[in-house]
Amino acid sequence: MGRSARRTYDLDDVDIVPSRRTRSSKQVSTSWQLDAYRFDMPVLAHPTDALVSPEFAIEMGRLGGLAMFNGEGLWARHRDAEDKIGQLVELADSEAEDEAAISLLQKLHSAPVNPDLLGEVVARIRASGVTTAVRVSPQNAAALTPVLLKAGIDLLVIQGTIISAEHVGDDSPINLKTFIADLDVPVVAGAVTDHRTALHLMRTGAAGVIVGYGSFAGTTTTGEVLGIGVRMATAIADAAAARRDYLDETGGRYVHVIADGDIATGGSLAKAIACGADAAVLGVPLAAAAEAPGKGWYWPAAAAHPSLPRGAMLPVTYGDRPSLEQVLQGPSNDPFGSLNLVGGLRRSMAKAGYSDLKEFQKVGLTVRG
Amino acid sequence: MGRSARRTYDLDDVDIVPSRRTRSSKQVSTSWQLDAYRFDMPVLAHPTDALVSPEFAIEMGRLGGLAMFNGEGLWARHRDAEDKIGQLVELADSEAEDEAAISLLQKLHSAPVNPDLLGEVVARIRASGVTTAVRVSPQNAAALTPVLLKAGIDLLVIQGTIISAEHVGDDSPINLKTFIADLDVPVVAGAVTDHRTALHLMRTGAAGVIVGYGSFAGTTTTGEVLGIGVRMATAIADAAAARRDYLDETGGRYVHVIADGDIATGGSLAKAIACGADAAVLGVPLAAAAEAPGKGWYWPAAAAHPSLPRGAMLPVTYGDRPSLEQVLQGPSNDPFGSLNLVGGLRRSMAKAGYSDLKEFQKVGLTVRG
Amino acid sequence: MGRSARRTYDLDDVDIVPSRRTRSSKQVSTSWQLDAYRFDMPVLAHPTDALVSPEFAIEMGRLGGLAMFNGEGLWARHRDAEDKIGQLVELADSEAEDEAAISLLQKLHSAPVNPDLLGEVVARIRASGVTTAVRVSPQNAAALTPVLLKAGIDLLVIQGTIISAEHVGDDSPINLKTFIADLDVPVVAGAVTDHRTALHLMRTGAAGVIVGYGSFAGTTTTGEVLGIGVRMATAIADAAAARRDYLDETGGRYVHVIADGDIATGGSLAKAIACGADAAVLGVPLAAAAEAPGKGWYWPAAAAHPSLPRGAMLPVTYGDRPSLEQVLQGPSNDPFGSLNLVGGLRRSMAKAGYSDLKEFQKVGLTVRG
Amino acid sequence: MGRSARRTYDLDDVDIVPSRRTRSSKQVSTSWQLDAYRFDMPVLAHPTDALVSPEFAIEMGRLGGLAMFNGEGLWARHRDAEDKIGQLVELADSEAEDEAAISLLQKLHSAPVNPDLLGEVVARIRASGVTTAVRVSPQNAAALTPVLLKAGIDLLVIQGTIISAEHVGDDSPINLKTFIADLDVPVVAGAVTDHRTALHLMRTGAAGVIVGYGSFAGTTTTGEVLGIGVRMATAIADAAAARRDYLDETGGRYVHVIADGDIATGGSLAKAIACGADAAVLGVPLAAAAEAPGKGWYWPAAAAHPSLPRGAMLPVTYGDRPSLEQVLQGPSNDPFGSLNLVGGLRRSMAKAGYSDLKEFQKVGLTVRG
Repeated sequence: MGRSARRTYDLDDVDIVPSRRTRSSKQVSTSWQLDAYRFDMPVLAHPTDALVSPEFAIEMGRLGGLAMFNGEGLWARHRDAEDKIGQLVELADSEAEDEAAISLLQKLHSAPVNPDLLGEVVARIRASGVTTAVRVSPQNAAALTPVLLKAGIDLLVIQGTIISAEHVGDDSPINLKTFIADLDVPVVAGAVTDHRTALHLMRTGAAGVIVGYGSFAGTTTTGEVLGIGVRMATAIADAAAARRDYLDETGGRYVHVIADGDIATGGSLAKAIACGADAAVLGVPLAAAAEAPGKGWYWPAAAAHPSLPRGAMLPVTYGDRPSLEQVLQGPSNDPFGSLNLVGGLRRSMAKAGYSDLKEFQKVGLTVRG
Repeated sequence: MGRSARRTYDLDDVDIVPSRRTRSSKQVSTSWQLDAYRFDMPVLAHPTDALVSPEFAIEMGRLGGLAMFNGEGLWARHRDAEDKIGQLVELADSEAEDEAAISLLQKLHSAPVNPDLLGEVVARIRASGVTTAVRVSPQNAAALTPVLLKAGIDLLVIQGTIISAEHVGDDSPINLKTFIADLDVPVVAGAVTDHRTALHLMRTGAAGVIVGYGSFAGTTTTGEVLGIGVRMATAIADAAAARRDYLDETGGRYVHVIADGDIATGGSLAKAIACGADAAVLGVPLAAAAEAPGKGWYWPAAAAHPSLPRGAMLPVTYGDRPSLEQVLQGPSNDPFGSLNLVGGLRRSMAKAGYSDLKEFQKVGLTVRG
Repeated sequence: MGRSARRTYDLDDVDIVPSRRTRSSKQVSTSWQLDAYRFDMPVLAHPTDALVSPEFAIEMGRLGGLAMFNGEGLWARHRDAEDKIGQLVELADSEAEDEAAISLLQKLHSAPVNPDLLGEVVARIRASGVTTAVRVSPQNAAALTPVLLKAGIDLLVIQGTIISAEHVGDDSPINLKTFIADLDVPVVAGAVTDHRTALHLMRTGAAGVIVGYGSFAGTTTTGEVLGIGVRMATAIADAAAARRDYLDETGGRYVHVIADGDIATGGSLAKAIACGADAAVLGVPLAAAAEAPGKGWYWPAAAAHPSLPRGAMLPVTYGDRPSLEQVLQGPSNDPFGSLNLVGGLRRSMAKAGYSDLKEFQKVGLTVRG
Repeated sequence: MGRSARRTYDLDDVDIVPSRRTRSSKQVSTSWQLDAYRFDMPVLAHPTDALVSPEFAIEMGRLGGLAMFNGEGLWARHRDAEDKIGQLVELADSEAEDEAAISLLQKLHSAPVNPDLLGEVVARIRASGVTTAVRVSPQNAAALTPVLLKAGIDLLVIQGTIISAEHVGDDSPINLKTFIADLDVPVVAGAVTDHRTALHLMRTGAAGVIVGYGSFAGTTTTGEVLGIGVRMATAIADAAAARRDYLDETGGRYVHVIADGDIATGGSLAKAIACGADAAVLGVPLAAAAEAPGKGWYWPAAAAHPSLPRGAMLPVTYGDRPSLEQVLQGPSNDPFGSLNLVGGLRRSMAKAGYSDLKEFQKVGLTVRG
């Protein structure tokens, strides 16, 4: 080309290649720690109403993972959020066209965020004793964070499709660097898709950086709508390289790389870690769980954008819906890797001969021809 | 290979990778200027009867874009062009086989171009006050241009599948260089598909050069019929390089690169600009609009060739047909990027941190593995 | 890989890129000459009973092409070959499973070749005045050639899936070099798939070398059955390089490269020439013609192998079947390039600015990313 | 990428390219020898209950191949294994969902292995006079091997998805090196997927090393579940390179490379040998045989894992089921290469001009663009 462009790879393009002594999967640890919070499994739930109700968040925490509750979703706008989601799902079940459901989503999101309601809902999660993480957009972070701090959150997630350390324009909501410095809770921020933006975001003081905007074929459509695409294998490896660079320039500050996109099975979860992620965000595969409020449907938060929706409602059918516990920890009777995701990761690590997540980031990878 | 062949890429093969400070989309301008004519959006309508009726051209201009009216289509041959298109659409709706509709198209085009009729129709567009651009083929440019000038066109478009600065043969219609030099209106010419031909065409004095012949899977079939293919990402980047070379050799003459092919969504529109285009020609996505005379069908002008048609009738169904304004400027309730195309471009530019089209041509690109 | 393997390309992987002055298609010649025989179009019919009946061969010659009559097919085994093919087609029309039709084909081919019958049939073609080319296998070349010479053939085609200049084994039928030297008629031999074998075959004294074994998705299955595959773009370019090498080592003997595989449209015909072929063999696209005895079905001769068939019966449906003349010379009302194949080639050459086939072998090519 | 990753290729990505004198297929030998055991064809049956019943193992041996009997499957757990498989097949025939059949498989495998029963069944195969090979997992090798030796096996197969020369952990079953040294029967071990692990396994004293875990689209799902993938063309070539290295370091010990994965046709069997394998394991294509107990269904042993199944039941339909003899040795009336697999290999070798398997490992290969 007259322009240069680097070659990038999807998780589907890569394979894990064991080349060490195999290991008992009982000797494998899948735990990780973000700031003061320790988790048994490197799995976060994507902040969308299709997935993270307060109850889902509590169950996710109880199982050893972390749900990111969407602080700007329907639960923060409607006291009867569950009914509203019920209407949406009913419409999606009965309508072949995407547009009708998207229009309803847009309408439901036109109600304003109610800070009191948000505070109450978050306090409910908090009261259960699980680590409480709430997502806000960069635009609303300044307005909503006080409410969240008061409700007792442990982690603040500042997340948009693409965010940068600084934003240009009248609507500039926050300077992430000063905003984070002033906060007492650790911040996870994203999404970024390349090395440079990842490094800049690390420099804001974030405890974790999200790589990828939750891309998933058939539901998250940022690529179609904006032309902004991310090949997760490359993007994760890039962010992991930024993590190394930042570790070096700070003499030891380790920022967690959290991968969000194209992870549907135990195998893709393992590949995300193998590419360099410390943990991974799951959306669609968790939406299959009986506890997910989407009742068999998944959609990302961006599907509700008033003038430029970037997400579709995707049916996630598995016959009987398994429990979240079964999705994450098995046992599985699904041969295609949709159940026992963490068991799949654990066994992958064992077959490859690694005993913890950090080591497993060094496993051999190949790229398909 | 025993022969050398450069590797080329489609728009689908590339991704835009934001790596700068994000920006408010309100601070983004999508305007561009061709000679004395300024447009709010870098979007042209492809010169086919499926799309550009006189009324469609007027609406397109009113919205800030530019329609290229086909000076050799049915409106220039039949006083009741709308009825004729109606017959065609009715046949396409009822017939599974492509051949019947193509045969009718061929028959309808066997009527000669009526210069008086052409003049009247063009004058109608002109009278509305929008910028008036009419397309002629190289073969008929000499004969039809006087009519068009008299009707008051602002821009002349000389377009064929592939054209070159000079043509060899008895039927050589025009020497583009002398033809353009003698004209008072600016000329847009094309299509070209590579650097060399783009540069030669720039040297004829054209104000804009069209890259690509409107390739679109399922409708424009030049690749199948002639083996002549164009990978738009590479072709646009090549033409942009020719623009730089020509700028240098002339000490400052800037020829606009106009991309025509494989653009269906806001995302692909953004990619075309990101690859180096100044503006883009849309066909299929605009055919979904209620104002398009094809009533849900799209076909390129080459579908009517008497002995070697290179286009098929493609159904473009979206349930209710949106207005052209909604297709271009939203709001959208379609998650797959077919509505609010210019909004998608604008937001892509904002996420990538660029404030005008010219700058956005420098955004980072990656190529899928 | 632990082994080296060259990258190879299909015709579908490459595009023709015009970069010269366009030319009037009236000024383009598609003629070529093989030994003393001149043809208006660089098109041969594949030697299969699905295609080349005596009448088809005559019509093909009349139109300016060349049909290779299969000297070991049903016409050489059954006096009522047409009825036999009728039974086969009837069975194929009524049976979903491939196996039944293949079994019948095998049974029909278990009858021996009748030399008298073969002589009569060939004489019938000969009597029409068209250039008469008959295909035999290497195994039977020695036995059948005297019959064919007596019947007055102009060209002998010695063809098998893969042939080599010399064959090892008890059943070694002929030494091609001495066999060809002793003959008075020119010989076309093949198939070969790489540079080395092409060069060796040129050294036998053949007038033309066939590149490719007629690969075509869904019908010729040599890849599935034997693992022997050929990417036509690379294979043609390789054989053309062998032609240059042989031209140099002989001080001027030009052996024609004839491409056989994956050509279905005017576009792929143009690409085959562009890659370096002097002419191309067509199978499936000609089977659509009303004159083809397969009545809408195509199968290669290898489909009849008694223990290892390497071809399937492929339905070739186009609604009404066009005349062979229309398939080759148009006019076309099919937008996908299945009609007016030679017109497509001619126009491709014109757009690319070349006036004869030999020059067109130098046109620019690109490879898709 | 921030990480390096080698490019790897599937068998489907490569083509065999003949470039020598062709040869009579009567002069081609497909025999090979593993330790003291000679086989007419380089074909092993995958150790799964879907395929290898005692009777199937006997027929496979009689035809000149080798079946690996699964020492931990249903035949070792249930005296009425055939009935149990019948129930499973009936359920698979009647249920659209995979989960029900997998659940039943899991339940049937929850019964313990009965050493007496295993001994009896193996003795039955042994009594037929064919070479007797039984597969055990690394975990159970120590416990079950005495039973097998007593039953008179000729070859021990120690096989798991991925195994290594040494295993780390409490459950470490055996040190392969000392285990193999102490045995009187030769051992085949696997699977490995890369050069390093292959070399390590060769150093344990194994007579043969299995490359690949039986990957097959739609049935073996290790890639989906664990992210561990293997591109067979590259993996075989890697293991063959390890064979050369080991041959050199030992001054002449030749360890056989046995390819297991993605082989469905005569063509892919030929490619596996061409890439460097000495023999190949077949699963799905043999499951089509009338003798296969799966009655038209295939599943790998890993489909029965209690908490993380890595295999699905795949329907293998061919209308009437052919005999195993016809699958392996023909005659074929299937044009797509599913019958007469060894005939396809033989003919491929002949066309490429090689007379034995060892030589054929040097045939030219190309990789698709």
